[in-house]
Amino acid sequence: MKSEYPIDQTGEIFPHFPVVLTTIGDNIITLEFVQFFSFESPIIGIGIDPDNYSHQLLKEEKEFVINIPTTELVDEVKFCGNNSGRNLDKFSATGLTSKPSEIINSWLIEECPINIECRVIQEERIGNCDWFFGEIMKVHVTEDHNRLNALLYSGNSAQDFKLRELK
Amino acid sequence: MKSEYPIDQTGEIFPHFPVVLTTIGDNIITLEFVQFFSFESPIIGIGIDPDNYSHQLLKEEKEFVINIPTTELVDEVKFCGNNSGRNLDKFSATGLTSKPSEIINSWLIEECPINIECRVIQEERIGNCDWFFGEIMKVHVTEDHNRLNALLYSGNSAQDFKLRELK
Repeated sequence: MKSEYPIDQTGEIFPHFPVVLTTIGDNIITLEFVQFFSFESPIIGIGIDPDNYSHQLLKEEKEFVINIPTTELVDEVKFCGNNSGRNLDKFSATGLTSKPSEIINSWLIEECPINIECRVIQEERIGNCDWFFGEIMKVHVTEDHNRLNALLYSGNSAQDFKLRELK
Repeated sequence: MKSEYPIDQTGEIFPHFPVVLTTIGDNIITLEFVQFFSFESPIIGIGIDPDNYSHQLLKEEKEFVINIPTTELVDEVKFCGNNSGRNLDKFSATGLTSKPSEIINSWLIEECPINIECRVIQEERIGNCDWFFGEIMKVHVTEDHNRLNALLYSGNSAQDFKLRELK
């Protein structure tokens, strides 16, 4: 037996999506709005609220790095999701280690086992969000990376990060 | 220590995304290209290869239903992902039960604990895929639904469905 569910709470019952740390220039933003948009010509897209500081940065830089966090980084992921980088250096605040990218100018996060350098090739406004679609330029991965050691997003708002562990 | 990873295999190391059964008219397609694009005005988008039979249907119907499968439906999910509906009635072939939607014309899948009726409000070509963005019109859910009883996609191709269970 099924009942009607509030439309604006759908994110609360949908299966969990991965959550990532995205670096844009020298800022870090936690995102659950991330997805592959094409496999054959590999494209990853990210969605950002236009009021967000990272939105402004991305409009200027046109580049971003997807850093995949492990469950050990849950505090850093929450911190970067719940604080703005407008008046804050998130690398200093979290103690995460910055490392130069090879192809683009944004920083990689050393503690994340996967770093994906992307260059924006398309932008679209969808609903309240601007989506930026990035061509994958370079992928770095640690040899002992366990794909199941991932953080999942479980909320219904880009402003309040609720997380759970996959394993 | 990190090494370079093949760009076109990035989907193999990325954390898992949910997989859903999408109904368009009376056809069923398994999709891993699904994501929320906006929470405040709730929008769910799906990406479909232009060569796909469902692509043609969606261009005509402009409506779709996201049906969230449970782990018990793994065989049906694989079947609907690995077969075209062009010359096949997937409801008959799988034994899944069709039920009328309330707002739109596509069928709901009764065995799925969540059904989300969506109406297409925007379309964008991104890379090799066409993405259709749907406003959520109605959500149906079973009372005993367990969000963790979800199927996850673990591959790198829209043509070969590799799945794993969350729990």
